[in-house]
Amino acid sequence: MASTVGKTITCKAAIAWGAGQDLSYEDVEVLPPRAGEVRIKIHYTGVCHTDAYTLSGKDPEGAFPVILGHEGAGIVESVGEGVTSVKPGDHVVALYTPECKECKFCRSGKTNLCGKIRATQGKGVMPDGTSRFRARGQDILHFMGTSTFSQYTVVSDISVVAVQPEAPMDRTCLLGCGITTGYGAARITAAVEEGSNIAVFGAGCVGLSVVQGAVSQKAGKIIVVDVNPTKEEWARKFGATDFVNPTKLPKGQTVVDKLVEMTDGGCDYTFDCTGNVDVMRAALEACHKGWGQSIIIGVAAAGQEIATRPFQLVTGRVWKGCAFGGVKGRSQLPGLVGDYLDGRLKVDEFITHRKTLPEINSAFEVMKQGDCIRAVVDMLE
Amino acid sequence: MASTVGKTITCKAAIAWGAGQDLSYEDVEVLPPRAGEVRIKIHYTGVCHTDAYTLSGKDPEGAFPVILGHEGAGIVESVGEGVTSVKPGDHVVALYTPECKECKFCRSGKTNLCGKIRATQGKGVMPDGTSRFRARGQDILHFMGTSTFSQYTVVSDISVVAVQPEAPMDRTCLLGCGITTGYGAARITAAVEEGSNIAVFGAGCVGLSVVQGAVSQKAGKIIVVDVNPTKEEWARKFGATDFVNPTKLPKGQTVVDKLVEMTDGGCDYTFDCTGNVDVMRAALEACHKGWGQSIIIGVAAAGQEIATRPFQLVTGRVWKGCAFGGVKGRSQLPGLVGDYLDGRLKVDEFITHRKTLPEINSAFEVMKQGDCIRAVVDMLE
Repeated sequence: MASTVGKTITCKAAIAWGAGQDLSYEDVEVLPPRAGEVRIKIHYTGVCHTDAYTLSGKDPEGAFPVILGHEGAGIVESVGEGVTSVKPGDHVVALYTPECKECKFCRSGKTNLCGKIRATQGKGVMPDGTSRFRARGQDILHFMGTSTFSQYTVVSDISVVAVQPEAPMDRTCLLGCGITTGYGAARITAAVEEGSNIAVFGAGCVGLSVVQGAVSQKAGKIIVVDVNPTKEEWARKFGATDFVNPTKLPKGQTVVDKLVEMTDGGCDYTFDCTGNVDVMRAALEACHKGWGQSIIIGVAAAGQEIATRPFQLVTGRVWKGCAFGGVKGRSQLPGLVGDYLDGRLKVDEFITHRKTLPEINSAFEVMKQGDCIRAVVDMLE
Repeated sequence: MASTVGKTITCKAAIAWGAGQDLSYEDVEVLPPRAGEVRIKIHYTGVCHTDAYTLSGKDPEGAFPVILGHEGAGIVESVGEGVTSVKPGDHVVALYTPECKECKFCRSGKTNLCGKIRATQGKGVMPDGTSRFRARGQDILHFMGTSTFSQYTVVSDISVVAVQPEAPMDRTCLLGCGITTGYGAARITAAVEEGSNIAVFGAGCVGLSVVQGAVSQKAGKIIVVDVNPTKEEWARKFGATDFVNPTKLPKGQTVVDKLVEMTDGGCDYTFDCTGNVDVMRAALEACHKGWGQSIIIGVAAAGQEIATRPFQLVTGRVWKGCAFGGVKGRSQLPGLVGDYLDGRLKVDEFITHRKTLPEINSAFEVMKQGDCIRAVVDMLE
């Protein structure tokens, strides 16, 4: 096969031409990487609620036409000038939370939120202000610095990490978002201590990964809260000790009452993995007075606000949050892949549905169903 | 003088007979301390907004008739059976946040909120469920476990700490609440690091003590925010580097905009010392993305709620709070008295007004004026 290096590649992608429309499976031209950029052949991508949220048009910062997708794994096809952190042939995971290791944020030691390319990433372009995608004669926007719904994508070199090639890419793609977000929230953001009691609201991919993180930290009670009764089996499979269905509580008992009762005063750590602001409030108020911390992971709809009485905080509860589980992608993701390879981090179990790229719209459909944890899309089949 | 030990003492107190009424200067009978209790001759008391709040009737848990007051210093007159932590003659400060060193909270190492006598303290009675005060033939309630608006008071032995006798009691009384609350919030709850930028909303006793705590931690920018322009001089006297008056900003610029601009992205720590829920929101949103922490110290009116977009927390800001500055009274208050005696903690400067017990209602009046930081009441004059 002739080398594609330095050339525009024409391949298939799922393009979002407008809010609320189905993705369109069609040809896209992917320009070669410029200085500091990496072109990746995407093998597998997950489909996440954030993709669906932007596609729905509810994201006020969403712009079209765009190539969505941010849970992607693949192999580096070529690199632009000056790129030394990855090389052609490397197995990689795309990082919507980049890590430059140089900016105020990266150097702070306090956060994984790199600031270097935030402005252009938010606008859907590469750091030089332009796009590498063209279709139907026009530029197509990038998404979250990753755009993994294309067979080839171009990303900044700070938005990609090489991982162990022995890890199957249909698994590592899921470490690009949901699993890492939950696992990291428990291990890094909360740093759950041995014996502490935790509650996880929402038993999807993120929530079940919080459970895994809490198990790895030797937490005490690990209580999963979900209105879907089929999630109890899932929760227990991943290590939850208890399951609470708020719709099945006795009349007059709130989920906060129930959790406070189960934990003799409240949870040491709670995690919202629902994006529902009322649930976020309950998660905070179910924390133990004096020290309980509630971590917001779920993404709320635009304009929604959280609220509580300040007394909740004055009496020692802490309200915080995280993105990508507080994980620094380039420094820490290989460690998570190692945890997977060593059997300490379950990934395979999350894959409830498989789709091909032409079927990607049905992957969005199944995501709305309660029995779907993650649909993985085979990009090359 | 004949010993008063074991006898009921009749002395003067300022009794709150009902919400919204002036305090009544009159005789009160103070019963002897029972097992685990301490009777204190109060020499000086501060007057704090919390006293005024309860007296106003806005505190839903306020009950009458009651003897208010919680910033008190005095000398132990006698102790009940089994009391070993203080003895007659000890110079002491009353602690509305007790420290039993035994309960789940005290043993946690994570909070200063002792749980041992919380229930009875909240009901205005001693741990055995009864009152030690009688006036006009009826029981008078205790307040915050301290009731320092009486020449003699009885408290639980976990609600009092002996301090250095060389420290003047008209100063140490103020360490019973406001000064300790602010100083501790900066040093213990936030644990401000060297060089970090902080903002303090509200330049009263608590806010100015946060400034002192930040100075002692070698903070970088220490920005005081207050709508009262006369507070700028106060703020600078205590070590503030900058002063912002939100009412004097250019049109269209919010205080959040201003603070973010002054600190290249936001403050590392902010402190609300106003009790205003809108200010609490601004304090959070003026924090630096990725790590900024906002600490709520002020007490909001009943039923009021704080709100923000969850995105503020997901992007790394932390919302927390504290009571009594996170200070464990029996373990740590002598250290603060030492800081005062060594000249590291300003106290004298806070005393803007002095009153006698019969004049106590005018101490409440001056507190409403902008030029009053603290009014100290001489209980024995």
